[in-house]
Amino acid sequence: MSINIGFLLFPNLTQLDLTGPAQVLSRIPGAKVHLIWKSIEPILTDVGFTINPTTTFADCPQLDVICVPGGSGINEQMVDQETLNFLRHQSKHAKYITSVCNGSLILGAAGLLVGYKSACHWMWSSYLERFGAQAVDARVVRDRNHFSGGGVTAGIDFALTLAAEIAGEGVAKRIQLSLEYDPQPPFNCGTPTKAGSEIVEKVLLLQSERIKRIEQNIVIAARTLEQSSTK
Amino acid sequence: MSINIGFLLFPNLTQLDLTGPAQVLSRIPGAKVHLIWKSIEPILTDVGFTINPTTTFADCPQLDVICVPGGSGINEQMVDQETLNFLRHQSKHAKYITSVCNGSLILGAAGLLVGYKSACHWMWSSYLERFGAQAVDARVVRDRNHFSGGGVTAGIDFALTLAAEIAGEGVAKRIQLSLEYDPQPPFNCGTPTKAGSEIVEKVLLLQSERIKRIEQNIVIAARTLEQSSTK
Repeated sequence: MSINIGFLLFPNLTQLDLTGPAQVLSRIPGAKVHLIWKSIEPILTDVGFTINPTTTFADCPQLDVICVPGGSGINEQMVDQETLNFLRHQSKHAKYITSVCNGSLILGAAGLLVGYKSACHWMWSSYLERFGAQAVDARVVRDRNHFSGGGVTAGIDFALTLAAEIAGEGVAKRIQLSLEYDPQPPFNCGTPTKAGSEIVEKVLLLQSERIKRIEQNIVIAARTLEQSSTK
Repeated sequence: MSINIGFLLFPNLTQLDLTGPAQVLSRIPGAKVHLIWKSIEPILTDVGFTINPTTTFADCPQLDVICVPGGSGINEQMVDQETLNFLRHQSKHAKYITSVCNGSLILGAAGLLVGYKSACHWMWSSYLERFGAQAVDARVVRDRNHFSGGGVTAGIDFALTLAAEIAGEGVAKRIQLSLEYDPQPPFNCGTPTKAGSEIVEKVLLLQSERIKRIEQNIVIAARTLEQSSTK
């Protein structure tokens, strides 16, 4: 049995949002991983290197799993009707609709999270309600056929959870062992609560320009979605 | 201050060995991440998509950090004198010589681990001694200016540890929070001991052909190294 697992690949994505889950999900027997964009030109990631799409919106087969990663590039994708239409089209028949990090805001902008619970990066989760979704402060969230991971590294926990759903716990456990996933973070500061206000404020300060910029497009995307749904 | 951080990018690498640490280390202020190969042609990863090198062996600047990821593609690299010579050359002046997963066996084949402690993927750690290194069963190992991570996902713990060394704990903690690294593995089976013999045996069985193939080149690589050091 072949399982088509597709990731949206867009400029300035946070590459680990994609490469973490892709590593896990590619090890499901029968899995075929697709990286999808408008063209097959190289895509610049946030780390400064490029990854090549494996297929285009036009050529992509029907996916069993559609996964939307996050990153500062969501800014453009939330208001890109070509991207949003591709996600809407695939989601009609995909078995699982998923996201990692603030990729959930792209799914939200596509109108695919109305009435759904979702995870999101802690810095962005409060914006989910603009798209009719309910933010859940958890590393992995499932609501019916929607699976979502929190910020960046949560994509690994998300993908192992989804692997168990798709292929059973036995397969997921073998993948976890093969990836030696027995994490030992050097610091206890992976959430705002654990990190404390000083570190949180420093991170927010460093990101403040970016947050302001993306906030503007969230407003536009939410308004566009509202207008299209009341037509 | 600019910090040149270079990853060896080779065919059939386990891409998360590289993309996990690259995500972390790229967020060190002043960091420039290089993906290095013989040419700038796209490199096929184990997941089935390609990543593009940013520079070549010939054009690579002197690195502050050299990092060698692992994967089944180590088989070719352990016996490739062009690759091994590049690593030897860079290591003369690099501040940190590092590896993730069984990438340590490539460093070993280059003769760079003689007398050093190193981490490695659990499936491969017993082979380190063939290259005069001492395997340590830990997620992150430091021995002088050598830092190494265990299997695949250990690369994230390794990179946060190295980030703290390079830029201080404050920076490393901010990176950890920004990547929301507060892991919650869905299963408790990330090491052979935790997974238990049944899962371990199944994983080894699925990998047996690959292990046999790589074992042969480990023997060749170790012999070549021994001959060159007794000349």
